[in-house]
Amino acid sequence: MGRYAFGVDVGGTSVKMGLFDETGTILDKWEIPTRKENKGASVLPDVARSLLAKMAEKGIQEKDLVGIGVGAPGPVDDEGTLVSGAVNIGWEPFNIPKAMHAYINVPIKAANDANAAAYGEMWQGGGKGFNSIVAVTLGTGVGGGIIINGELLAGATGAGGEIGHMHMVDDETESCNCGNRGCMEQYASATGIARLARRRLEKDDEPSVLREGKVSAKTVFDGVKAGDKVAVEIAEEFGEYLGKGLAMIASVLNPEAFIISGGVSKAGEILFSFIEPPFHKYVFRHCGNAKFVLATLGNDAGIYGAAGLVLR
Amino acid sequence: MGRYAFGVDVGGTSVKMGLFDETGTILDKWEIPTRKENKGASVLPDVARSLLAKMAEKGIQEKDLVGIGVGAPGPVDDEGTLVSGAVNIGWEPFNIPKAMHAYINVPIKAANDANAAAYGEMWQGGGKGFNSIVAVTLGTGVGGGIIINGELLAGATGAGGEIGHMHMVDDETESCNCGNRGCMEQYASATGIARLARRRLEKDDEPSVLREGKVSAKTVFDGVKAGDKVAVEIAEEFGEYLGKGLAMIASVLNPEAFIISGGVSKAGEILFSFIEPPFHKYVFRHCGNAKFVLATLGNDAGIYGAAGLVLR
Repeated sequence: MGRYAFGVDVGGTSVKMGLFDETGTILDKWEIPTRKENKGASVLPDVARSLLAKMAEKGIQEKDLVGIGVGAPGPVDDEGTLVSGAVNIGWEPFNIPKAMHAYINVPIKAANDANAAAYGEMWQGGGKGFNSIVAVTLGTGVGGGIIINGELLAGATGAGGEIGHMHMVDDETESCNCGNRGCMEQYASATGIARLARRRLEKDDEPSVLREGKVSAKTVFDGVKAGDKVAVEIAEEFGEYLGKGLAMIASVLNPEAFIISGGVSKAGEILFSFIEPPFHKYVFRHCGNAKFVLATLGNDAGIYGAAGLVLR
Repeated sequence: MGRYAFGVDVGGTSVKMGLFDETGTILDKWEIPTRKENKGASVLPDVARSLLAKMAEKGIQEKDLVGIGVGAPGPVDDEGTLVSGAVNIGWEPFNIPKAMHAYINVPIKAANDANAAAYGEMWQGGGKGFNSIVAVTLGTGVGGGIIINGELLAGATGAGGEIGHMHMVDDETESCNCGNRGCMEQYASATGIARLARRRLEKDDEPSVLREGKVSAKTVFDGVKAGDKVAVEIAEEFGEYLGKGLAMIASVLNPEAFIISGGVSKAGEILFSFIEPPFHKYVFRHCGNAKFVLATLGNDAGIYGAAGLVLR
């Protein structure tokens, strides 16, 4: 009977790995660089070698492992297939558990990295105690993950929970990275907030701390905390978009909670004061009691969630 | 070992019931009036009496039943609790399986009626072969049901899949039945299409068959089939709203298919020619391969789905 699990979070720069006991407590974590040359052909062998070395170091045998979970930066379906490859790494589509089995013969599961992180936050982070959640990562882009009754929603082609590319605005003139125009990500990501800020600052000459230096999501929320009127207006516009977008999602899914993570979430609970009023304005009243909570696992959410795929 | 199941669909005017064998084939169906007096206190006893009479008629004993599924017109959670009651019937909140057990001692499950119908269509109707679908009922309102990997999404407070009240339009001046403004239902329901038609007809004097008699979703799509230019414009506006709304949902859920039912769906496959182009314009590209299919069970979807809750 296995007593340990590994969680692996494959990123474009590094691969994070964690060793967990069967209760979900992290015992060790480390990372290795992601070698992207040759379409990322070395990445999986590097991961396997690193895990085998850790097993040797700790005296852990295959029979001691419940399994290994892997988060990958691309759409992953329920069978663990990286459906459209992973552009950040150069990976073509392949079945992750099958490929890993060439190196280690234990149960292996895989998920999209954002979905794995969502799973980690619900299992051991800010969403502990909930069973049906929508995770919202406000970083350079807007990522997400949906868990219904404890099960990750992978989606028919592995793109479930990619809430950042939900269409929201019809008359947007700039394009999103995905090729569409008016995606939630264009307003609610760190990049989106900086864009809203620049648009607001260009509108008139009202004095603001944001006129000194480079504007970012961080300077906007620092400005809010310092009582800067223009910063508050920008945060309100951000909150209007994100609150409305999450209301649309809540009206369809009726989740117990939203778990907010990513760089923008470092602003803290003050975010909710901008998100919740528009959320309640737009949400279908039967779905309005969803809670808003902050993620707590930071960059470790991915390895927690990956391990959770096999442990939970 | 049970060989039969009952499906019960409680509506505001009548309660539909069906007897099914274990393979999901319908053997008999009938209905009784919904007695709404005294806060609907007679409805459940009436249903039980009717089922027991059918059992006596067919020589079916409790031990022959896999169970009974019940669809009810209000939010129902995973435990079968009618969370906020059912206004159409006068029911206060209560747990449906527990109340039914006072009359018949077999496994009993309950779901929201639209969710049960969605389940029926996926199990034995237009969605056969799919496993993750969004059902869209275009009737007086817009209802819906979401099934992920074969499991109904009930929602935290029983309101999962109520897609008709997803916010879509910011500058709508008329209110939706739910109290909000700009819900999908205001544009994509039969009532919504008639409203779009009236707005279009008031705009100018362009000749149209729709200027004769009362305008409805049916006359609009009859006009489309007759090549009426104004009718086509109205159908295009409807398709823009519905296609965009379903694109938003697809970008979040990445379903295999949308199953379209309800009065408006009687227009047939021609509907898809108006829904699919905007759908593909707005959807996140990784989620764009969702299929559109028509429902096939009509008013029987609810009893099929209710029986499916215990049989499938």
